[in-house]
Amino acid sequence: MTTPAPHTVSAQDRPASDARHRVVIVGGGFGGLETAKRLKGAGVDITLVDQRNHHIFQPLLYQVATASLATSEVAWPIRGVLRGQEGVRVLLGTVTGVDAAGRRVLLADGDSLPYDTLVLATGARHAYFGHDEWEEAAPGLKTIEDATLLRRRILLAFERAEREPDPARRAALLTFVVVGGGPTGVEMAGTIAELAHDTLAPEFRAIDTRKARVLLIEAGPRLLGGYHESLSAYAQAELERLGVEVALGQPVTECTREHVVYGDTTLPARTMIWAAGVRASPAAEWLGAPADRAGRLRVEPDLTVPGHPEIFAIGDTVSVARPDGSPVPGIAPAAKQGGAHVAATIRARLAGRPAPRFAYRHQGSLAQIGKRRAVIDFGRIRLRGALAWWIWGIAHIFFLIGMRARLAVAVNWLWIHTRNQRSARLITQGAPDEASPGPGTTLRADAA
Amino acid sequence: MTTPAPHTVSAQDRPASDARHRVVIVGGGFGGLETAKRLKGAGVDITLVDQRNHHIFQPLLYQVATASLATSEVAWPIRGVLRGQEGVRVLLGTVTGVDAAGRRVLLADGDSLPYDTLVLATGARHAYFGHDEWEEAAPGLKTIEDATLLRRRILLAFERAEREPDPARRAALLTFVVVGGGPTGVEMAGTIAELAHDTLAPEFRAIDTRKARVLLIEAGPRLLGGYHESLSAYAQAELERLGVEVALGQPVTECTREHVVYGDTTLPARTMIWAAGVRASPAAEWLGAPADRAGRLRVEPDLTVPGHPEIFAIGDTVSVARPDGSPVPGIAPAAKQGGAHVAATIRARLAGRPAPRFAYRHQGSLAQIGKRRAVIDFGRIRLRGALAWWIWGIAHIFFLIGMRARLAVAVNWLWIHTRNQRSARLITQGAPDEASPGPGTTLRADAA
Repeated sequence: MTTPAPHTVSAQDRPASDARHRVVIVGGGFGGLETAKRLKGAGVDITLVDQRNHHIFQPLLYQVATASLATSEVAWPIRGVLRGQEGVRVLLGTVTGVDAAGRRVLLADGDSLPYDTLVLATGARHAYFGHDEWEEAAPGLKTIEDATLLRRRILLAFERAEREPDPARRAALLTFVVVGGGPTGVEMAGTIAELAHDTLAPEFRAIDTRKARVLLIEAGPRLLGGYHESLSAYAQAELERLGVEVALGQPVTECTREHVVYGDTTLPARTMIWAAGVRASPAAEWLGAPADRAGRLRVEPDLTVPGHPEIFAIGDTVSVARPDGSPVPGIAPAAKQGGAHVAATIRARLAGRPAPRFAYRHQGSLAQIGKRRAVIDFGRIRLRGALAWWIWGIAHIFFLIGMRARLAVAVNWLWIHTRNQRSARLITQGAPDEASPGPGTTLRADAA
Repeated sequence: MTTPAPHTVSAQDRPASDARHRVVIVGGGFGGLETAKRLKGAGVDITLVDQRNHHIFQPLLYQVATASLATSEVAWPIRGVLRGQEGVRVLLGTVTGVDAAGRRVLLADGDSLPYDTLVLATGARHAYFGHDEWEEAAPGLKTIEDATLLRRRILLAFERAEREPDPARRAALLTFVVVGGGPTGVEMAGTIAELAHDTLAPEFRAIDTRKARVLLIEAGPRLLGGYHESLSAYAQAELERLGVEVALGQPVTECTREHVVYGDTTLPARTMIWAAGVRASPAAEWLGAPADRAGRLRVEPDLTVPGHPEIFAIGDTVSVARPDGSPVPGIAPAAKQGGAHVAATIRARLAGRPAPRFAYRHQGSLAQIGKRRAVIDFGRIRLRGALAWWIWGIAHIFFLIGMRARLAVAVNWLWIHTRNQRSARLITQGAPDEASPGPGTTLRADAA
């Protein structure tokens, strides 16, 4: 793929009124927010539009799902983050398409946003390998609502089990299944095991929460498939030490609210979490651009959309290769680096300078395993154990937004680390028709 | 009303197996939780059942609604609070009635809980003076879900206003109405004004949030009707200084999602909050016991249900008079004192001692007005201003449960006090069919 000729903003491109260059950013996640922040002082008008009012710190979302952190500790209002940055406008809205010829972003209510440069940073959703019907039984973890739904299901399972007289039903209620052995699945499984076996153990009387089963199912031959083999083995050993059962090489073939089928096994289980597959946002469809099998928009090496140098796409919604041919991973640091590159390119164009090259620098793969251990794969250097956990913790706190958030999360982790107490254990927002597990255990769910 | 003869647990009352005395407590609010905690070590078996898994610190719920505190900072899992207390069983369940003859509490799913002593601490709900249809337009503030719904509506109003081209619609979106001039209404109105005029002002560009109107409507002649007149006047002056408009002596006669009618005025407003009337839980109906007009169960001076010395009722769900004839108020300290009295009475009965008398001690009426002022009515001593605010703050932090919660709330208040930054500003859990304010402003709400 040849490098496209540098694109500078020519006199014809600029709006006739010689107004400022208009950048529209779709998505307030890591990529979009980084783009906006890095354009500070660049003299452009930025409009950032997102369908939610808050930025989500996705790496810690699983801690909301496991009742370790509060929702507002991992999400911040986008307006608050960009507060005071001159030239920035934040809008709450849903993008339904892009009119590339007319250079407008189309919104759900019929409004449109004109742009000179467009940045699509719309992220990814979960994929169920053609079985979208599994989503209701095994939700994923991408939004605050996902996290509070999972939290609700996990905590309700224990509450129902406490009142359930039938041993087989009780066992199913106390069986938790995580599908997908990547970092998210590993982190969820370890934390659910600790929640069940440590935090909740003294609080129930009819059930022994230490007997709760936590199962992590991975279709491939090892956990953390993209990490060094030694770290995969360590992660598995540590999870098993925490009481997690690990099933490798066994893809899930069926998944309902009552059971999961993997390999030859049919397991009754009432709580399932999906961490096994992602697909991109519809950005590629909006532009009719080439996409890979997961729907990721295939961008040029400089992150522009083929044939549209004025449109960038970054983060989880794109597919772009590193010089050695390997794909840039769909992780937060990659999105941030993409955002930084886009901002630098826009500045260069406005100044008439050649644009910098985009070179993704992998800073390491991290995964927490329970509250005391982690693995970090820096490539040539690999860390595991308690040291890795401290680095993992410091890195995550560092990347949180704002000192207040850092203090709050640090205090929460201190409490969990030292006392096993998880304080964000609220069951909220239940659907009135949430299926009861059967007579003897109906619970009135909270009104939505 | 004569004092009933002391009721001790006789040999006939005790279950034949000489098992421990069984206390069932319905409700995990201030009254129920205090009863359970004060029975520690009394040698009784306690079952506490609530339809939610968490205890709500209601005095600070309005701060969740105004995005100042996170949900998990004002609510704690009941199991966690009673963790480790011997003989306590906590169940999540919905009570539908009481079989007083058979001494059983009836649950929604058909289960029942036998008791030797029953404690009903089921609280209150909002009342709409015969207009229950107003509830959808003007929700109250009793549960976590109430608080996040109000938070959502308040924050969405600003987001919609930012994109609304029509000036009249924009004005309606930027008009917030609180109905009811008691402490809750005063606290809500002052905090919404600060949120609009201070916190959000730098974050919106198309609208000037300092122009948002906050209206507090009270049917009676003054705010804080139960407080000394000088404090009512001070509260009104302070609210007006914060930009709240106060309408006195004007009951609301109509209330929809689009407007409110009070006195002679019809005001287009899109966000309304109800803080004007309460009615008791159905406890009196469950027992066929005498009740007042708000449904509160009329208990004996020792908080037992007439004709049922083995059944106590406490807190917001009861009506009981003080020796001077004035009613014990429906506030948290009164519920806690009731719970303490019930526990002391149960202990006395088991020991064969006469039961203590119940004497409600009013410890003061407090109300915060914005982030820097408060009023406190101790009766003979009255405080106002910054000193009152500090005492208010310390008192509330003191009564929170647990050091972690105290730290978290203190840090949050420090941030609000010094920087005007409110961090719990998340719009979550929208209904997909939430009514749009019209073309040009449709927002895709988050999937529930």
